[in-house]
Amino acid sequence: MAEIIDRQTIGELLNKSSTDELISYIEEAFVSYSSKTAVVPPVGMLSFQSPPGDVHIKYGYIQDEPYYVIKIASGFYENPGLGLSSSQGLNLVFSQKTGVLETILMDEGYLTDVRTAVAGAICAKYLAPDTVNAIGIIGSGIQARLQLKYLHNVVDCKKVLVWGRSKDRLLSYSEEMSREGFEIETTTESRKIAQECNLIVTATPSKSPIIFADDLPKGVHITALGADTVGKQELHPEILKKADLIVLDSTKQCQSHGEIHKAYNDNLLVDKDTMELGEIISSGGIRRNPDDITIADLTGVATQDIQISKFILEIL
Amino acid sequence: MAEIIDRQTIGELLNKSSTDELISYIEEAFVSYSSKTAVVPPVGMLSFQSPPGDVHIKYGYIQDEPYYVIKIASGFYENPGLGLSSSQGLNLVFSQKTGVLETILMDEGYLTDVRTAVAGAICAKYLAPDTVNAIGIIGSGIQARLQLKYLHNVVDCKKVLVWGRSKDRLLSYSEEMSREGFEIETTTESRKIAQECNLIVTATPSKSPIIFADDLPKGVHITALGADTVGKQELHPEILKKADLIVLDSTKQCQSHGEIHKAYNDNLLVDKDTMELGEIISSGGIRRNPDDITIADLTGVATQDIQISKFILEIL
Repeated sequence: MAEIIDRQTIGELLNKSSTDELISYIEEAFVSYSSKTAVVPPVGMLSFQSPPGDVHIKYGYIQDEPYYVIKIASGFYENPGLGLSSSQGLNLVFSQKTGVLETILMDEGYLTDVRTAVAGAICAKYLAPDTVNAIGIIGSGIQARLQLKYLHNVVDCKKVLVWGRSKDRLLSYSEEMSREGFEIETTTESRKIAQECNLIVTATPSKSPIIFADDLPKGVHITALGADTVGKQELHPEILKKADLIVLDSTKQCQSHGEIHKAYNDNLLVDKDTMELGEIISSGGIRRNPDDITIADLTGVATQDIQISKFILEIL
Repeated sequence: MAEIIDRQTIGELLNKSSTDELISYIEEAFVSYSSKTAVVPPVGMLSFQSPPGDVHIKYGYIQDEPYYVIKIASGFYENPGLGLSSSQGLNLVFSQKTGVLETILMDEGYLTDVRTAVAGAICAKYLAPDTVNAIGIIGSGIQARLQLKYLHNVVDCKKVLVWGRSKDRLLSYSEEMSREGFEIETTTESRKIAQECNLIVTATPSKSPIIFADDLPKGVHITALGADTVGKQELHPEILKKADLIVLDSTKQCQSHGEIHKAYNDNLLVDKDTMELGEIISSGGIRRNPDDITIADLTGVATQDIQISKFILEIL
């Protein structure tokens, strides 16, 4: 029978492993996705209305590797009120040769959170301005915490401004992340994030824009990762119009349900430069004009789930 | 942590439960599918070339029920050479309210095999001729065995003619199913099945027709369940043209990748009467002219996986 690895074991394994190595595994995920050595069908989705919840099923394989992976991850945003994590799910690792289920990573959504945070760090590694004055975080949940934890590996700046709607949640965020060595300030005015930070990460399930174009300074980089389903949106479409470069984890997925979805459908991005993250990584990075505004739109690709699963199996 | 129920426990639970009750659960699956009280997104699929394998991911939920279900089932047809079952997979049962994984049914593909066999029995219950002279089975694998086992609940006939390519496999089929009380004859000429049987079930992963129109007697019913992926086919398209009624488990799935897929794409079925199985069940059956040729095309719908999972949880 398949080996089952629980959430706690996964956490312990990740804590004692090399984050740089994990980052390189996830970089490889984007490269294999963009270079078409991976087979990644469209994301399976289910939605629930009451209480609201989304389920994403991401699956696929990298050619000539031993495994195929099916990852189920959900967000049920009223769960914290029941004492449960909003993220739930598991990664299933099967043999490409026999279909036998080899390993169940019962991560309860944690590996999805981690590989998403690592993707944010990779975006910052390739796209953040040379000098980051202050990191702006939109959101105060698990992902808003993990983004900071992994950004730490690629960005020196310790000064952080965090936006959220709930003062209680901001307080607990501030207490927790200060202990990790960050200088945290909090705000309930999202405009302040746009005005004061030149590296911004948006990590909410918002359905209406939180950041607006007029507020943004030159040279800012924004990684938007909240929009993973049609209808979610964190940036005003004018920001996308104003951007000098838009980087997508998957052109297809971002057009169909990412942050750019609406602007793309409204034909606002016709003349816009876009690149896939995997192309940037495989070409060793891009030359960035100091005044450029860059946006990364992350919807999450199955190769990230494949690579983080492989990473866990290798550090077991 | 989620409760895990293994293959053996599932087998024991099914053996001591009521088959009539299981049949009524699966009938309800087709009714909820056709009456749109279920949410069933398109099937996720992965294919492998070497060795050949298909993976199907079926998922969805019935409204106002406690669970949503994701079912993974694969066929790796060279597995028996390695001493492994060609069917592999598992059913995952999650809460519709929180996304929490409640139960893992580690069935290794067995529940898919059973719910497919039960669907075959349901087709026979509603569509077989009043008097079945002989049951014809195309194929000698697991599904060819289970079909007979469940047909037993709805059809009196014990006389069975089985077609296969391998004499060894036919012999072991014959020995095994004779012990279950059937009178088994075997053949390697598929024409004989078409000529002698008026209830036929096709259960192979064939990619070319095995049954041809010229051989078929009047009044025959055929349930075709091998074609679950584009490219698979067991009936010559002329049979579909000749049929008086074609019954589909899912119109959408059968058109996209079922037995009728090719004939549908070649516009051979333009004037053909089709109905969904769920419509027939909810209207209490159809009046069948004794000379009618009827075909059922089963691709497998996620509501079957939801209902068999629910059945297992209720007999636990």
